[in-house]
Amino acid sequence: MMYNMDRLYESVSDKGHVCVGLDTSPGYIPPLSRSLAASDAEAVLAFNYAIIDTTADKAACFKVQIAYYEALGRAGFDVYAKTLALIHEKKSLVIADIKRGDIADTALQYAKAHFEGDFEADFVTLSPYMGMDSIEPWLAYAKDKGKGAFVLMRTSNKGMRDFQYLELRDTTRLYHAVGDKLSILADQYRGNYGYGAFGAVVGANPKTGTEREEVTALREQYGNLFFLIPGYGAQGGAAEDAALLLREGNGGVVNASRSILNAWTVKAANNGQEANNEFAAEAAGEAVVVMRDAIWKAAGI
Amino acid sequence: MMYNMDRLYESVSDKGHVCVGLDTSPGYIPPLSRSLAASDAEAVLAFNYAIIDTTADKAACFKVQIAYYEALGRAGFDVYAKTLALIHEKKSLVIADIKRGDIADTALQYAKAHFEGDFEADFVTLSPYMGMDSIEPWLAYAKDKGKGAFVLMRTSNKGMRDFQYLELRDTTRLYHAVGDKLSILADQYRGNYGYGAFGAVVGANPKTGTEREEVTALREQYGNLFFLIPGYGAQGGAAEDAALLLREGNGGVVNASRSILNAWTVKAANNGQEANNEFAAEAAGEAVVVMRDAIWKAAGI
Repeated sequence: MMYNMDRLYESVSDKGHVCVGLDTSPGYIPPLSRSLAASDAEAVLAFNYAIIDTTADKAACFKVQIAYYEALGRAGFDVYAKTLALIHEKKSLVIADIKRGDIADTALQYAKAHFEGDFEADFVTLSPYMGMDSIEPWLAYAKDKGKGAFVLMRTSNKGMRDFQYLELRDTTRLYHAVGDKLSILADQYRGNYGYGAFGAVVGANPKTGTEREEVTALREQYGNLFFLIPGYGAQGGAAEDAALLLREGNGGVVNASRSILNAWTVKAANNGQEANNEFAAEAAGEAVVVMRDAIWKAAGI
Repeated sequence: MMYNMDRLYESVSDKGHVCVGLDTSPGYIPPLSRSLAASDAEAVLAFNYAIIDTTADKAACFKVQIAYYEALGRAGFDVYAKTLALIHEKKSLVIADIKRGDIADTALQYAKAHFEGDFEADFVTLSPYMGMDSIEPWLAYAKDKGKGAFVLMRTSNKGMRDFQYLELRDTTRLYHAVGDKLSILADQYRGNYGYGAFGAVVGANPKTGTEREEVTALREQYGNLFFLIPGYGAQGGAAEDAALLLREGNGGVVNASRSILNAWTVKAANNGQEANNEFAAEAAGEAVVVMRDAIWKAAGI
């Protein structure tokens, strides 16, 4: 069985660790191009097309944050479906960042929604709060179609400390309990490169030495989990932080959204030029290359 | 400020505790009516209309499980929007069971998606795993528009034991940590009847005496949290279990989905009759009344 996680591993080997986050707020689009579109939904689609076109050959994968499309109502789901379709057409991999988490019959419905039909993605993100019976129904799609998932484990936001970081009676933390369960699953659905079909979301924003030690330990402890690493760029994480979460030069993709989508604003200010989508896409492509090379360097590749 | 949670309290006083769960799988629809529809999406919409029509005056509120609509792709969101619109038209309250949970800008996009525009609901359900910065962005809508939310706390599924039930170092459980944070929020956004604008999802399926004591303690400890109580009927919970989670005859709504939507199957078998949507709606109305009265009795009302 060739899992999508194996394909992602190979994509990282070929093209580096960058995951381009299409969290496309209409406000990120160059005003010139936005004003030419018939609606914000159309503007988002045209912008996405331009970005995908210039970054697909430089990035390991894309991550589409569904909240930005939901916020546009019914028209947003049309844009969402078309964005996924274009990524498939480019033979790139796409993570649907949906963070769904519900049980039994409901989980099956969500799995059908995001692993089949209009919104079919290669990977999804999932939230584990309800327990493993909210994760397991998705696994049928790993078995049948090679689909993958990244389950929230230790995120990079401030609120991470509220629950994920709580110490359990046995002195591990909640996120370890999640990681332990995922690691067992990963062993049962293990791909060609040693990683399970389902991986974990682990943040890259270690502010202190203690946190650096913590994430380093975490990478060693969960060697069979492929990581989706958020928190890069606009969220404060750097290439060195992300590199701590890689393993033998692979084992993770590093997501950046705003720092790639908004790269045009800096370039336009420097050049004194009015930006459009093509200009923004060119700047995005350059930002991906800079980020890719910085991670390669930090990881000693 | 009149919060939606106040309106829900009043609706419970007037009409009882039943929350009708519109987890409408096409498979729940009488085949006669399903076959007459142009598509599964159209079939779901017609069925929902019939159910809403006969239950709106007998139930406290509706809960729409978005997964069943997402599973129908783009057409599903059209049905979802129209279902919400009909519930609003009937002056009933609707909980969007979306269990979203994401941070900062993303949470704001989700809030915009579900508290404005095509998919505007009165309440949402949220997942707390990422921390309180995934809950707080939604509160602007409590302040401005009276919107409400139910945050996952202690659910009724088996997987509840995987994480929610874990003992923390201070000997409370994870779900207490969530409840404690929610209770502080509820005090800051407290409505006319003592309940906060945001409440909690707490399951009603206590199988043992210990669990009964536990949920009873929980109801006392979190007196300012209005509960959304799942697990009734098809999921095994009974009126007596649900009553443990009520407070002075109010303070909670009890959701049932399959036992209401599928009530027609029993009635049709008994009568030897072929069911259609109208027949199913009549059976659903009767099931709501039976459930409502059983909870009233169990709660001593």
